[in-house]
Amino acid sequence: MSKGILIVVSAPAGCGKDTILEQALKANDNLFYSVSATSRAMRPGETDGVSYFFKTREQFEEMIKNGELLEYTEYVGNYYGTPKKAVTDMLEAGKDVILKIEIEGAANVKKMFPDCTMVFILPPSFAELDRRLHKRGTETDDVIKQRLETARKELKFAENYDYLVTNAALEDAVADFLAVVRAEKCRRGNRPGVIEGLLAE
Amino acid sequence: MSKGILIVVSAPAGCGKDTILEQALKANDNLFYSVSATSRAMRPGETDGVSYFFKTREQFEEMIKNGELLEYTEYVGNYYGTPKKAVTDMLEAGKDVILKIEIEGAANVKKMFPDCTMVFILPPSFAELDRRLHKRGTETDDVIKQRLETARKELKFAENYDYLVTNAALEDAVADFLAVVRAEKCRRGNRPGVIEGLLAE
Repeated sequence: MSKGILIVVSAPAGCGKDTILEQALKANDNLFYSVSATSRAMRPGETDGVSYFFKTREQFEEMIKNGELLEYTEYVGNYYGTPKKAVTDMLEAGKDVILKIEIEGAANVKKMFPDCTMVFILPPSFAELDRRLHKRGTETDDVIKQRLETARKELKFAENYDYLVTNAALEDAVADFLAVVRAEKCRRGNRPGVIEGLLAE
Repeated sequence: MSKGILIVVSAPAGCGKDTILEQALKANDNLFYSVSATSRAMRPGETDGVSYFFKTREQFEEMIKNGELLEYTEYVGNYYGTPKKAVTDMLEAGKDVILKIEIEGAANVKKMFPDCTMVFILPPSFAELDRRLHKRGTETDDVIKQRLETARKELKFAENYDYLVTNAALEDAVADFLAVVRAEKCRRGNRPGVIEGLLAE
């Protein structure tokens, strides 16, 4: 059986990343989500072990010390990281794995998995991003302002990504993302031994 | 407006390339077929200007002399080539263009359009390819034998292609091909100015 592929997804806050991935996971049953660990507070509607593994700063630092994380970073005052073993186990089992991480973590994963597929989700415009962040209503104006400034900085790193998916209409963005996954499964490098297998007949 | 993307498709005879492309063209209305020129005889069901531009050897050699072809090659005793201007006009107009060409022509196009997307269509097995060629009933046993030998040689060049689409079930192969086109439209290199445009807001 072929190994699974690793898809790294980054996006500024408010770009609809979570909704896109949620719908993509429903539509493709070989696609799995790598649940990240974080030290940030749980938001309304989130579930421990599903949205994130919620940890205290002390617990998170223990995981770092024990080498249990594929990558981790501090972002807007909180730790975010990817538990290592869960990811490699899924890939070995042929499952395609989505890592939802910010730009620094993504760059670190790329070093360890040079063949991973890097997807950056873009807002249709900054004006629209501002509107969406306010609509979400989970953050104060100051935090939103900080997130917009961070978004601008993050966008400059979109140049390190393989694919840019613009979330103007959700349905199109989901279809784009699913097409990227399907196309990557056809990429020659992700189908080792196929040509050799035919020629050996 | 963005330029269109160029998709080069090669496949050994009998792999269902024509059917896959026909269905893909029906499903994606920004996708256009670059009609090739050939000196081979028209087959039942083919139409001049649609299947190919059918030319005599003399007419074809005139086109070569006048530099009207993007690439051309001789294959199983006949000329095949791609009229240049039609392709570049469509790309400039934002249309995505499919070039259906054999491996040598594909390699030449890749030199002229390094960013083109190269797709190789594979049979599920050589046994199945043999069966399909006989079922088609348009060629003698000798020609089929020659085509199978050619297919083996061509397959070795599949390593120069970006994507391998296996035509085991037609519907899946069409969906794979359409996903490749959709994903390539999201590829960063095919979306020049998008990040800069957002940052300029």
